[in-house]
Amino acid sequence: MTRAPGPGSLAAAERVMQRCDRLAEISGSPDLLERVHLSPEHRRANELVAEWMTQAGLSTWQDAGANQCGRIEGAEPGLPALLIGSHLDTVRDAGRYDGMLGVLLAVEVAARFASRAAELPFALEVVGFSDEEGTRFGNALLGSHALAGTFPPEWWGLADGDGVTLRQAFADFGLDPARIGRAARRPESLIGYLEAHIEQGPYLEEADLPLAVVTSIAGARRFELTMTGVAGHAGGTPYERRHDALIGASELVVEVESVARASGVIGTVGRMQAFPGGVNVIPGRVEFSLDLRASTDHERDRVLAEIIRRANVIAERRGLRFESTEIYRADATACAPWLQDAIASGIRHAGSEEPMAMWSRAGHDGMAVSAVADVAMLFVRCGRGGISHSPDEIVDVRDVAVALDAYEAAVVEVAERVRAEPGRLGSDRLGAA
Amino acid sequence: MTRAPGPGSLAAAERVMQRCDRLAEISGSPDLLERVHLSPEHRRANELVAEWMTQAGLSTWQDAGANQCGRIEGAEPGLPALLIGSHLDTVRDAGRYDGMLGVLLAVEVAARFASRAAELPFALEVVGFSDEEGTRFGNALLGSHALAGTFPPEWWGLADGDGVTLRQAFADFGLDPARIGRAARRPESLIGYLEAHIEQGPYLEEADLPLAVVTSIAGARRFELTMTGVAGHAGGTPYERRHDALIGASELVVEVESVARASGVIGTVGRMQAFPGGVNVIPGRVEFSLDLRASTDHERDRVLAEIIRRANVIAERRGLRFESTEIYRADATACAPWLQDAIASGIRHAGSEEPMAMWSRAGHDGMAVSAVADVAMLFVRCGRGGISHSPDEIVDVRDVAVALDAYEAAVVEVAERVRAEPGRLGSDRLGAA
Repeated sequence: MTRAPGPGSLAAAERVMQRCDRLAEISGSPDLLERVHLSPEHRRANELVAEWMTQAGLSTWQDAGANQCGRIEGAEPGLPALLIGSHLDTVRDAGRYDGMLGVLLAVEVAARFASRAAELPFALEVVGFSDEEGTRFGNALLGSHALAGTFPPEWWGLADGDGVTLRQAFADFGLDPARIGRAARRPESLIGYLEAHIEQGPYLEEADLPLAVVTSIAGARRFELTMTGVAGHAGGTPYERRHDALIGASELVVEVESVARASGVIGTVGRMQAFPGGVNVIPGRVEFSLDLRASTDHERDRVLAEIIRRANVIAERRGLRFESTEIYRADATACAPWLQDAIASGIRHAGSEEPMAMWSRAGHDGMAVSAVADVAMLFVRCGRGGISHSPDEIVDVRDVAVALDAYEAAVVEVAERVRAEPGRLGSDRLGAA
Repeated sequence: MTRAPGPGSLAAAERVMQRCDRLAEISGSPDLLERVHLSPEHRRANELVAEWMTQAGLSTWQDAGANQCGRIEGAEPGLPALLIGSHLDTVRDAGRYDGMLGVLLAVEVAARFASRAAELPFALEVVGFSDEEGTRFGNALLGSHALAGTFPPEWWGLADGDGVTLRQAFADFGLDPARIGRAARRPESLIGYLEAHIEQGPYLEEADLPLAVVTSIAGARRFELTMTGVAGHAGGTPYERRHDALIGASELVVEVESVARASGVIGTVGRMQAFPGGVNVIPGRVEFSLDLRASTDHERDRVLAEIIRRANVIAERRGLRFESTEIYRADATACAPWLQDAIASGIRHAGSEEPMAMWSRAGHDGMAVSAVADVAMLFVRCGRGGISHSPDEIVDVRDVAVALDAYEAAVVEVAERVRAEPGRLGSDRLGAA
C-alpha cells in the first residue's frame, strides 16, 4: 500500500534517526534518558536543535517560554506562519522518539522548503516545545501554553521535587517570568499547527501501515477516588458486620473495565492502596485513581457518570462512603478538518490509498496550541505493540522516510488551500473562537 | 438466662474493673495505651500485678520469660498446677480488657481459693504472660512459648523498630537469654490451662449472653500475594493488549470474600498496593496479602486451595503471573473436651442453662501452651459489636461478676474430675503428645 521512499528520503530519514540518537545522549541521568524543563540538558538540546535548524536554512531563536524556534519566510517577509514541530522534553527513562522525532522531521521538512520558500503563501516555522510531558513540575504542556498565551499565573508557584519553583527555574535558566507573554502568538499570525508524532499505540502496527491521520486528541479527566469503610480485626469481625473498603474498591476496579470496554472509552485505575494496611486488619480506607479518555468529551462524561453511579451502588450495598475529586481535566481537541484533509492528502502522496484515521489516546501540544490555531497530527507507526515512555520505544527508518514525504506533501497541500482561499482560514478560526 | 451475681461477686468485679483502669495508666505513650514486651511499663505492670497476687495470698515470681507468676499450693506442696490467666501486654492504642481482664479475673479466682486451697488436688497458678500480641518484635506469643519450652533460638535475633534485638532487650530487662529454658514447664507438672478473655467479636452481644465456652482457637495462615502483568501507558494500550495486574488482583479480592463467605472460613485481604502507581500508567504489579482463619485446619486449607485455584484461573485469563508466599502459619488449637466441659459446667453454675460454644477467630496464649498442657477458654462478652484492639473496647461489670463465678466454678469442676480420676489426665496428655 505504501510507495517505497526515494533514496533522498531514506538518507534524510537516516539523518533524523541519528539526530534522535544524538539528542538521547543529552540526559540528566547517566543510566537512562530524562530531559526535563529548564534543566541544563534542556539548554543543550535547544542549542543542538538550533544548530540543525541553522544548517537547514532557518533563522532561530529561543522564545520567552524556552521553546526552540526556527523560521523561514515565505513569498514575502512577515506572513502568518504554518507551525510544524513537536516537543524536546522527555519523561523519566524515556524512549528517543516521543517528541523528538516530530521536531527532527519538521527540521527536515523545512530544509526541503528552504530553497523554494518563495513558493509558500506563509512562513514556515519549526518549534521544539520546551515541556510537553510535565515531568519536572507535574503540570504538562508548559511550552505550548506559553506559545498559546494561555499560561496561568498560578503555575509560577509549582515546585519540582527539590522544591524549586517554576518561577525560580525560569530565572535560573536566564528567562524572565514577567515576559512569558512575549512567547504568545496571536491567532492572526498563524495558519495552523501540524505535528508528527509516534503513535504510542499498536493500531498502525496491527494494520501494517506506516502512517495515520489523527481525528482528535483525547479528552482526559483524572480523579482521586476514596472508598471509606470501617477498619477492624480480621479475626473478630464477621462478614455481615464488615464494611471492607478494599472489596468495594476492587468491585469498582472490575466495573471500570467492564463499563469502559463496552463503550470504547479508556478507563484506567493506575494507583491503589489500602489503609491501614495490616495483614490482619480489615481495610478501612482505599485510595485509588481513575484516568478516563475518549475521542469525545460527551462519550467520556457519559461513561464517567455510569462509573460514579456504580460506585455509589457498591458503596450503598456495603455501607461504605465513596468520594471522588477531579485532579485534571482536558477536553478533547478536534483536529481541524481542512488540516486533516491536508495530512490525508500527504499520506496518499506517500503511497497509502486509504489513509487510516484514529483518535489520539495520549495528550499532545496541539491541545494547547488549538487555543490560537487550527491543529492536526500525523501519526508514525512505532513497533513492539506501540510501547512508549520506555527505552524500548522503536521506529523503522523506512517509516520515517515515508513520514517525511507525507509531511512535506501535507505542507504543500496546506499551501495550495491557503492560495486558493487567501484570508478565509484566519477569519474562520477567529469566528470559531 | 443468667442468674444475677451476688454482692460479693459484684464487688470483686468492680475491683477487677478498677485494676484494669490502673493497668491502663501504665503506658509507653502519654496519649494512648501501649505496653510492650520488656519495656519499663512491662516491669511496672508485672510489679503491680505481683502486689495484687500477694494480697490474694499467692507466692509470686517473674519467670525467665518475663511472665508474672503466682501460686498457691493445693492439698500438699508441689502438686501439678492448674494454670489460669492471660496476658499483660497490649497492641498500640489498645483497649484495657484484652488480656488484662483475664489475668485480673484469675487473681480474683485464686483469692477465692486462697483460704481453702487444701481442698484442691492441684496447685493453682496465675500467669500474666509477657507477650501475646507481638507488638514490639513482630512475632507473637513470646511469653507463652517460653512457658511451653518451645522458644526457637532464631527469635533472639528479632529486632524492634529501633533495631534493638530481643536478645539485647532481655539483657536490658535484667534477664539472661541463656536461661530462657528455666521458664519451660514440663507436661507432668501441669493439669491444664484455663484462660478467660474478652470475645473480641459480636456473637455474645447478639445472643444476649455474657459468656461462652471456646471450642478451638483459629488456625491462621498468612500469605504475601503478587499479581504481575505488564505496565504501560494508559492512553496507548487498548484493553485487548493489556495485562493489568490490578484488575486481576481486584477480581481475586472479590473472589476471596465469596469463597470464604460460602464456607464459614474468614479470609481477609488487608494490604494492597499497585505499582508503579502512576495515575496514567497501567499497573504492572500488585502486592497484596491474605489472612485465612477457620475453626479447623482442614476447612482453612480447603478454602485456601480454592482461592489459589481461582487466582490461577484469573491470571491465566488475563495473561498475568500469580505468586503466593506463606509468611505465617499457626494450626488450629482444639480446646480439650474435658476442660470445655468444666467451663460449660462453670457457665451453667453461673446461670446459663445452655452454654454458648464458639471458636475463637483470634489467636491466644493457649495456642502455645497447648504444647505442654490441655487448654480451654472462657469468653466474656464485650460491647459495641465486639470492638477490640481499640480504646473503644468495653465490658460490663455485671458480665465480669458472672465470669468470675463461672471461672471459679470451672476450677471446682476441674478439681472434681482430677479427684475422680487421679493421674489419668497427665498420662493421657503425654500419650497424645
